[in-house]
Amino acid sequence: MINVGLLGLGTVGSGVYEILNNEENNLKKLLGKDISVKKILVNDINKKRQVELPKDILTTNPYDILHDDNIHIVVEVIGGIDKAHEYICEAFKNNKHVVTANKAVVAKYMDEFLFLSNKYEKGFLFEASVAGGIPIIKPLKQNVRINNISEIKGILNGTTNFILTKMIDDGLGFDEALKLAQELGYAEADPTDDVEGFDVKRKLAILASIAFNNQIDVDSIKCSGITNINTLDISMFKKLGASVKLVGSALSSGNKVSASVEPVLVNKNSTMATVKGAFNIVSIVGDTIGQLQFYGQGAGKKPTANAVVCDIYDIISGQYKTDHFIQNGNMREADLDLFNSKYYLRVNTKNISRVLGMLDKNHIQKFTIMSMKNNLVLITDNTSAKSIEIISSQLNTIGDDFSIVRLEDDLNTNALCIGI
Amino acid sequence: MINVGLLGLGTVGSGVYEILNNEENNLKKLLGKDISVKKILVNDINKKRQVELPKDILTTNPYDILHDDNIHIVVEVIGGIDKAHEYICEAFKNNKHVVTANKAVVAKYMDEFLFLSNKYEKGFLFEASVAGGIPIIKPLKQNVRINNISEIKGILNGTTNFILTKMIDDGLGFDEALKLAQELGYAEADPTDDVEGFDVKRKLAILASIAFNNQIDVDSIKCSGITNINTLDISMFKKLGASVKLVGSALSSGNKVSASVEPVLVNKNSTMATVKGAFNIVSIVGDTIGQLQFYGQGAGKKPTANAVVCDIYDIISGQYKTDHFIQNGNMREADLDLFNSKYYLRVNTKNISRVLGMLDKNHIQKFTIMSMKNNLVLITDNTSAKSIEIISSQLNTIGDDFSIVRLEDDLNTNALCIGI
Repeated sequence: MINVGLLGLGTVGSGVYEILNNEENNLKKLLGKDISVKKILVNDINKKRQVELPKDILTTNPYDILHDDNIHIVVEVIGGIDKAHEYICEAFKNNKHVVTANKAVVAKYMDEFLFLSNKYEKGFLFEASVAGGIPIIKPLKQNVRINNISEIKGILNGTTNFILTKMIDDGLGFDEALKLAQELGYAEADPTDDVEGFDVKRKLAILASIAFNNQIDVDSIKCSGITNINTLDISMFKKLGASVKLVGSALSSGNKVSASVEPVLVNKNSTMATVKGAFNIVSIVGDTIGQLQFYGQGAGKKPTANAVVCDIYDIISGQYKTDHFIQNGNMREADLDLFNSKYYLRVNTKNISRVLGMLDKNHIQKFTIMSMKNNLVLITDNTSAKSIEIISSQLNTIGDDFSIVRLEDDLNTNALCIGI
Repeated sequence: MINVGLLGLGTVGSGVYEILNNEENNLKKLLGKDISVKKILVNDINKKRQVELPKDILTTNPYDILHDDNIHIVVEVIGGIDKAHEYICEAFKNNKHVVTANKAVVAKYMDEFLFLSNKYEKGFLFEASVAGGIPIIKPLKQNVRINNISEIKGILNGTTNFILTKMIDDGLGFDEALKLAQELGYAEADPTDDVEGFDVKRKLAILASIAFNNQIDVDSIKCSGITNINTLDISMFKKLGASVKLVGSALSSGNKVSASVEPVLVNKNSTMATVKGAFNIVSIVGDTIGQLQFYGQGAGKKPTANAVVCDIYDIISGQYKTDHFIQNGNMREADLDLFNSKYYLRVNTKNISRVLGMLDKNHIQKFTIMSMKNNLVLITDNTSAKSIEIISSQLNTIGDDFSIVRLEDDLNTNALCIGI
């Protein structure tokens, strides 16, 4: 008999509980062991819940789980950072395996968790923390063993992808699309984490840490969201034969790691452009394997709970033991040095002389330009991301309404066709 | 020390040998064990080879590997069926783990191999047998545990996808595109296995067997290739906003399994349409996980050898033990009953009255039709695949030049717009 303790009974937690119950016989047949959820940590025992529960399974005391010698696996799905961190450490110290779906705490403490997992010879799996139901952590770990990964990138946030899809396909403005996402339950009342790219940043930190075998400092990743993109931009992107996506990208070359979260333009015929609504995609490039892409539901109760249960399965069947990657104790910062791309810039016409001055100062002298409804749109030649960052912060300082989008694919910029 | 015996030193075999040598230190660090290739079975010891080999490593006697008690893992990459079958069985009986990249032998004898693998408690892994470098077998096995898979399909043959891509994007005819594929090494001198869909059939049988937990009889899968598709068809597909792909699809519902390999039309904005050249994609739909898609290089020395080495790694690290799916001893036939789609038909104008008669007899009474250069193109309403199979065989009998393509996605058939 394997006993599981659940920390949290929100969307993912109740999904995990349901799958473990519905698939009980099936899992027993495959594993030769009974799996049972013994205790569940909640904030309020008396809250009404969708899922039917045996009496006495709920507790408000985490130590009913963390200090119970008969609980073998702790599943952390409470979210947040500090308490989750405390409980996970405590679980290892009490000789329990840990499975988590919590990207925030993994992005911040991956190295420490892997160290503890190794020290106590217990499993630490977090497949559900990135891209929900897409199996990406496990194949990535496998491929890292015999590949040098040079790039990992993806559409990792369903909320922003839903908003951008509505703006592109249905002509909605940003505010309208966000409101619709909130009504449909795709976006939170406070959408900051999603629309500013912070959610993607955490997932990218986890992916890049595995891909490049070194924990990447999540706070070092430059991040810009999608709030500046307006309907004029969308119409310009269409002229360019492009689609806009919020993409987290990490590159590695030699001893360098660069990472960014930002809106990028992809060719409308690319695979990334076909990722619509709340779906996610992750792409990796390795020297032996070439390019691999993984597509699926990036969130949602069932897919995410499915990933958690796959991790539980792997722990029970002993398929977790080789996860001794990383753990070198050195946090690593990501910069922008490896990004060298064309950029799309939209600025207010009244600021044009200032903007041209900024570009010139940053050695951006070749670009395509067109004007439209009091706006100027420029597409630069290949430019360092650092220069663009400087320009962005200067535009912020003068309070201009502007947008900056990196060109991920080669596009026909002649479609804009007016030189200056 | 783990000793590997290689059966075969062709493209994949030499790739495996190179990775195991180049990554020796890395693998030792991860696994805590030395891996060494001890013997390699070849046809001709004196043949000149690209890869440098120690003296005495080659043998023409398979029993130097199969009966060597110091060889722990046998990697079968000789291809073909009968000898491969014999050697794999012999390897199990001599207590060796088996890794193979050979789709033909796995498609035919999966059930027997899994039985032997279980009986002798040895690993049997075959990730490289389907879609080369794409990790699909392993995630599929994982998801099958807690999902009912209702559909698995994919672009599984790089040769035909290269040919179709050249026909669509560069306007080549079939013969021209095939010739180019042969010149570039993407197609064999005898391309039958690829262009008639037999290669896809084997891969689909393997995928469907795992997805539906029951070995599917490879010979029961209906199969039609791409040789009938001409430049007129391609121009019509473009009018329909579609792209043509050779797709292997398997569906499951209740106790039924249907499977087919055939050219299908996908929306040009779909993810499948963006899979170009020699790339592959596999899509699965499960009740818990929703849709997942896996994209990557479906063939080639490095990606395929990478998949073989991942399997070797899993065996050495003990991550293979739970593969006791299937093994029920009942081979299962696939029919066409679950396919109910619209179909594109191109026939010679001179046969129109006969064709209309056939359609009528098979209760296909609603369709869109247009004529073009002595050809008639019809798009049927939803129709059973069985009816289409009958019509196809009747058209074959009257010796007509024709093509039949299933519509996988909803397309705007009004683009053809002439009713009859």
